[in-house]
Amino acid sequence: MTAAAMPEPTTRVRELSRSECVDALRSHSLGRVALSVDALPVILPVNYIFDGSGAVFRTRSGSVLDRNCRNTVVAFEVDEFNPATRVGWSVLVVGVASALFGGDWLRALELGLPSAGAPDGAIFVKIVPGSVTGRAIEATPASTAVSR
Amino acid sequence: MTAAAMPEPTTRVRELSRSECVDALRSHSLGRVALSVDALPVILPVNYIFDGSGAVFRTRSGSVLDRNCRNTVVAFEVDEFNPATRVGWSVLVVGVASALFGGDWLRALELGLPSAGAPDGAIFVKIVPGSVTGRAIEATPASTAVSR
Repeated sequence: MTAAAMPEPTTRVRELSRSECVDALRSHSLGRVALSVDALPVILPVNYIFDGSGAVFRTRSGSVLDRNCRNTVVAFEVDEFNPATRVGWSVLVVGVASALFGGDWLRALELGLPSAGAPDGAIFVKIVPGSVTGRAIEATPASTAVSR
Repeated sequence: MTAAAMPEPTTRVRELSRSECVDALRSHSLGRVALSVDALPVILPVNYIFDGSGAVFRTRSGSVLDRNCRNTVVAFEVDEFNPATRVGWSVLVVGVASALFGGDWLRALELGLPSAGAPDGAIFVKIVPGSVTGRAIEATPASTAVSR
């Protein structure tokens, strides 16, 4: 098959607005944190809550996430894609991650932030966005009328 | 609610073997690449194929992925989690990303590697694993007999 015989693309990319990104962050609970560990890049999945001012997740004291999220710039990503239609979206937050301590609101948050293992030594990390960007891969109007 | 009143954890973490990680990489098509762009961390989703020796994805010449995956160490992550049961797994690859050129096998790969937008200027990037690690969050045996 030559490049000329490739089917026409049936999707297009659209930048998401800030409010669309925030809606997406609020609607999900699984995100991924990218950080540097011993000078190597790492991606770790986390269960999170987006409280309007940032993404909060729970980890264990001394964990890789704890040790590498101390007033550190990290990337945080949330996405959703349909493997069959290959449409979906992703939102990228770049911001400073830091540990949180104490307060009733933390205990309230904790109810919605499960973590594997015992709750002993649990800490909360919050990522405050410096930038929030996102994009959607959408079906083009023409592709909706084509069966393949 | 006090910490003492927290429910017992119903999940546990298990490290995946290398072959389990490779099986997971082969079984999926959506992954995420973490790299550094202008000294800031970024996570970008990609459709990929794992051909046994690495993860290959398509991007456009001049894209953020193209410009920042030139013989560069990156992280690549694949995961699957059930939001209801909160069990699932993730696999992390850390390796060198570099552009590929020419050859029949690239054209064959291209058939399975969609990208949004026109195919003009498409390039292939391959991430050759330096390390492959993974972990599963599994339901504990006790939790399977508990309805909540």
